[in-house]
Amino acid sequence: MKAIILNGTLKPSPAPSNTEALAGYLAGALERHGVQTEQIRLVDHDVKPGVESDMGDADAWPAIRERIVTAEILVVATPTWLGQHSSVTQRALERMDALLSETDDDGVPIAYNRVGGVVVTGNEDGAHHVIAVVAQCLIDIGFTVPGQAWTYWNKGPGPGDEEYANSDDTDWTHATADAAAHNLVAVARALAANPISTPPNA
Amino acid sequence: MKAIILNGTLKPSPAPSNTEALAGYLAGALERHGVQTEQIRLVDHDVKPGVESDMGDADAWPAIRERIVTAEILVVATPTWLGQHSSVTQRALERMDALLSETDDDGVPIAYNRVGGVVVTGNEDGAHHVIAVVAQCLIDIGFTVPGQAWTYWNKGPGPGDEEYANSDDTDWTHATADAAAHNLVAVARALAANPISTPPNA
Amino acid sequence: MKAIILNGTLKPSPAPSNTEALAGYLAGALERHGVQTEQIRLVDHDVKPGVESDMGDADAWPAIRERIVTAEILVVATPTWLGQHSSVTQRALERMDALLSETDDDGVPIAYNRVGGVVVTGNEDGAHHVIAVVAQCLIDIGFTVPGQAWTYWNKGPGPGDEEYANSDDTDWTHATADAAAHNLVAVARALAANPISTPPNA
Amino acid sequence: MKAIILNGTLKPSPAPSNTEALAGYLAGALERHGVQTEQIRLVDHDVKPGVESDMGDADAWPAIRERIVTAEILVVATPTWLGQHSSVTQRALERMDALLSETDDDGVPIAYNRVGGVVVTGNEDGAHHVIAVVAQCLIDIGFTVPGQAWTYWNKGPGPGDEEYANSDDTDWTHATADAAAHNLVAVARALAANPISTPPNA
Repeated sequence: MKAIILNGTLKPSPAPSNTEALAGYLAGALERHGVQTEQIRLVDHDVKPGVESDMGDADAWPAIRERIVTAEILVVATPTWLGQHSSVTQRALERMDALLSETDDDGVPIAYNRVGGVVVTGNEDGAHHVIAVVAQCLIDIGFTVPGQAWTYWNKGPGPGDEEYANSDDTDWTHATADAAAHNLVAVARALAANPISTPPNA
Repeated sequence: MKAIILNGTLKPSPAPSNTEALAGYLAGALERHGVQTEQIRLVDHDVKPGVESDMGDADAWPAIRERIVTAEILVVATPTWLGQHSSVTQRALERMDALLSETDDDGVPIAYNRVGGVVVTGNEDGAHHVIAVVAQCLIDIGFTVPGQAWTYWNKGPGPGDEEYANSDDTDWTHATADAAAHNLVAVARALAANPISTPPNA
Repeated sequence: MKAIILNGTLKPSPAPSNTEALAGYLAGALERHGVQTEQIRLVDHDVKPGVESDMGDADAWPAIRERIVTAEILVVATPTWLGQHSSVTQRALERMDALLSETDDDGVPIAYNRVGGVVVTGNEDGAHHVIAVVAQCLIDIGFTVPGQAWTYWNKGPGPGDEEYANSDDTDWTHATADAAAHNLVAVARALAANPISTPPNA
Repeated sequence: MKAIILNGTLKPSPAPSNTEALAGYLAGALERHGVQTEQIRLVDHDVKPGVESDMGDADAWPAIRERIVTAEILVVATPTWLGQHSSVTQRALERMDALLSETDDDGVPIAYNRVGGVVVTGNEDGAHHVIAVVAQCLIDIGFTVPGQAWTYWNKGPGPGDEEYANSDDTDWTHATADAAAHNLVAVARALAANPISTPPNA
């Protein structure tokens, strides 16, 4: 079983990314379930604006899309800016819009029988809203979102420099990530054993 | 297999409810899969404000909660007011908050291994946002939300009297409901065969 | 100048309300600008479900609506449940939907030239989303929302008992409330001096 | 009086943009009030990811920021993808985050005494949610959002090719834009005559 984690940080490598750090914790939890994980820092790639699978002209998306469809688990990890998921994350979601019209040979939408999870970091507030938005996008596209398949860290009210990577108050965040990994793997396995068949509107 | 549909219309019986009508279409689709369905019009019941399973004093919620936990499928059906899910729907979600701390004998949260779906009606715009919010609430509580486990009808831009029940432009809405029923049943069955076990944060 | 503060706590009087406490801080800040304030705990009143100004039959809304339209400033104060504004708050917003079609003698919508602010409390996360939703509802109805006309307190990640009323970490929340009061009063006065006239779609 | 309109379409020039077309209608309405307007198609400029006013290295944002702060009115115009504002729009909002810490010589935040409006296009649903999110971001930064300072067009339920630019059902959308222009200008003028002074948390 494989998991792809898309990191929507605004910071290109090699700058440290809090989102990468927390997504890395979840990756570790998934690996303890035997899942092979791969994290992609989207901002390092030239993903073109658009809503088709290939926007031509040195578009980095087709290679990323190729990774996504090899995996049973997709995790969208994003920082929070002005209370929202990042522009880099939204860019990837827009590109995944094209998955809506792609099916396997039986007419099953390509995102069906894959599960989605969410990781959110921020220095203030907004995780549940970001989880709502990302989950809705993934569900719209066809991913199944297991119960409590998310974790987050933020600092609480007001601006400030404190970030996940230098916080010592991460117990709840990590225990929640452990549960998210458990649930993502459990539902992915349940769907592998008993997949959703071709829907009537295919 | 059973499904409970919570109808969050603001209109007490016997007034006609567009939300009931569209939820009824989804119920029919679920029944064609052999699912037993029951629709509850929440506004007809005196559900007290609060976030515990029993707020005492003639509270109608405990009986509704009892119905919910008999079912593998929960559908939240709501009208859209000012772009949001209704107050009656939010009241039920608040009461379901208490499910967060309830587990079975093995420590599995009570909402795990149940699936959630969403039905939205409105006379203007806002369905995807309402789906996002309701899905997030259900996922927070522990329900799994299958891909595309929703349908909706609205009229499009601007105020107006047109409603689902007297529209003749419902083909997409119904085809989408058929797929939602298909996916809800498929994932509920997959989880029945291979349930999520006790999570590590239990 | 007058301000009405609607408190959407789920707890009837005389239970203490964190939302009332923080809204009370903002009321004090408004009073220091010479504004007369009145706070209404909505759950103590039998506000009927519906979207008209009077739902008949002992409906408590008409009297509250009467208070709102005497005031140049409306503050919506709400707790956060499952990341959302409360059912009690949404009930009031639904009832204000009727203001959309009410105008003064010149055809100016009744909410025009009034300003709106937001107060959010919670024990976890979600304030900016709640501010977004409440601000959108108020703007839809016709209220003007001044820059930074809000404040909030929450605890940050994870469930817990800590609440605004017993927190000693409220400096940012209070300074933000002081600015919100400053901005609400400034914009209300600017609009009193130079009101929006009848719009072309009246 | 000047207005800057940021168009967040995903399509680089010279491709036609529905968002540009509807924003252009609003621009015309603003011009009839004597406002000078300028529309910027963001995707034609290399706006770097980040949250500072200048991200260096051929960053196109500083020049756009310079245009924004010359104007009393800012309109954010965006398409809707997966129910959300576009990645291109979110990129601009992230960059405006830096305005939070910029003030004039009296310590008044630079966005104060400017007003914000919203234009949304889409081929399905989601305008009120996008208005909520964009309004919240603008209000967070310090812009005042007048009542009903928005317009939108979408097609209603389900995917499809129909777009604003080839629709003949735009009367409500245009009348709403006319009112938005009226309200943006009225509140901008009211604030010019009686500006918000230095807030107490400056």
